[in-house]
Amino acid sequence: MQHIDQDTITQAVIARHTTAGDTRVREVMTSLVQHLHAFAREARLTEAEWAEGVRFLGECGRSGNAGHQELVLLSDALGLSTLVTALDRRRLKGGTESTMPAAFHATDVPRDAQDAQAPIHAKGEPCYVRGRVRSADGSPIAGAQVSVRPSGANGATRHLSSDADGAFLVLTTVAEACPVAQSGPVGRLLAALGRHPWRPAHLQFMISAPGYEHLITHVFRKGGQYLDSDAVFGVHSSLVADWVRHEPGRTPDGQTSAVPFTALEFAFVLNANKGDKP
Amino acid sequence: MQHIDQDTITQAVIARHTTAGDTRVREVMTSLVQHLHAFAREARLTEAEWAEGVRFLGECGRSGNAGHQELVLLSDALGLSTLVTALDRRRLKGGTESTMPAAFHATDVPRDAQDAQAPIHAKGEPCYVRGRVRSADGSPIAGAQVSVRPSGANGATRHLSSDADGAFLVLTTVAEACPVAQSGPVGRLLAALGRHPWRPAHLQFMISAPGYEHLITHVFRKGGQYLDSDAVFGVHSSLVADWVRHEPGRTPDGQTSAVPFTALEFAFVLNANKGDKP
Repeated sequence: MQHIDQDTITQAVIARHTTAGDTRVREVMTSLVQHLHAFAREARLTEAEWAEGVRFLGECGRSGNAGHQELVLLSDALGLSTLVTALDRRRLKGGTESTMPAAFHATDVPRDAQDAQAPIHAKGEPCYVRGRVRSADGSPIAGAQVSVRPSGANGATRHLSSDADGAFLVLTTVAEACPVAQSGPVGRLLAALGRHPWRPAHLQFMISAPGYEHLITHVFRKGGQYLDSDAVFGVHSSLVADWVRHEPGRTPDGQTSAVPFTALEFAFVLNANKGDKP
Repeated sequence: MQHIDQDTITQAVIARHTTAGDTRVREVMTSLVQHLHAFAREARLTEAEWAEGVRFLGECGRSGNAGHQELVLLSDALGLSTLVTALDRRRLKGGTESTMPAAFHATDVPRDAQDAQAPIHAKGEPCYVRGRVRSADGSPIAGAQVSVRPSGANGATRHLSSDADGAFLVLTTVAEACPVAQSGPVGRLLAALGRHPWRPAHLQFMISAPGYEHLITHVFRKGGQYLDSDAVFGVHSSLVADWVRHEPGRTPDGQTSAVPFTALEFAFVLNANKGDKP
């Protein structure tokens, strides 16, 4: 009879997976078992710690809605989301870097309730974002669907489209640094690790156009706080831009502002669809 | 500014943990992050697979009750529970091997509703278990609290105590092979891996006595089905015993049985409390 102990258990589990119908399932689960066991061995995990881990994951699983926000936040906080995005996304020369899948991007705002031309009623200083959407070869992408949301308590998602030149101009509010959810198990984990929960100020963008990969990315503020210690490791240097503060006066949309405002420009380069991947 | 990509993310996360107040938290989380990232890299996990994993864990977290049964079952099915138990438990010479923490051991049966001398009303062939509880030096442990439960649909937990010689005799029903829960996410995972959900027939024991480590273990049936393919990797060769089938006649408790019955003997050796650990 097979003798299973701490030295033979890993091979015993993996040997059981040779009958998996899907070779990718077998590959992923084999790798997972090896690394999960290596972790338990290296950490010399105790039964009490194992039980605490099970309890913690259960609490994460029950927190948030069907989007599994707390588990996503856990993945973000451990750098796994950023790693997976980096592994999965092609790095086309000049292509805009992706950030982790949107955990907290509000997608529940009725689209027709919004309008890029509508006045901003939310608190916060006005922020004009002039964007350009283009392909890796430099050609403009017209009609790209763009969603933008500033971080911070006053952030509201706005939806718009790029024009015939692939350009758009949107009025939003200046993004502010904001903490990730602190009341749940991940918040407690961060505290136990002595880590602060803050994310640097950023605009989150989702951009899609037929024939191109959906882009989820952030644009950060040059010189902003927490750029070097984003609680979820989302900062890439290529995504940091000058946010220029202007005194009251003429705005990028040809109007006049009676209050100070911020303006920034950013070019978004979309990768062609994965179907074209070599 | 720190440049974070797929090569630098792991070190960036770990560097954030140097401020953890508890060195053990830091140690465990650092090991976890390294192995979790190593898994993602080796498997070249895609965003879609990551999302499926998050969804799967969320479903596990919401399944079962506060005991987090589905997450425990997941750990069992991946061999993690057996590994952690093997790592955590001392291997005293001659000490009875522990099995994984009891995921499905019924502890909700009112204790006073049971009695080792009460007749067995459940279906199933009678099974007499004669046990001895002793310490590593061979001295009997009197008054040890023993719970025993046969696997299978008819299994009911029985509670009793060892006598002055550390011995007990309990009448239960013959254990049967049984599948782990199949309706939940772990059941689907096993199916995807081409693995059957069966556990070999076993008696599950929980034994405790003042001054000794709580023992959770199984006693399996020699020659039984699935001994080499327990769905949760709980079988140790030292825990396999002869289950002797007897024709109708005189039983171990001095009575007479009109039907065939099974009898087995097993010695349980408890480790002294961890407080005495060198």
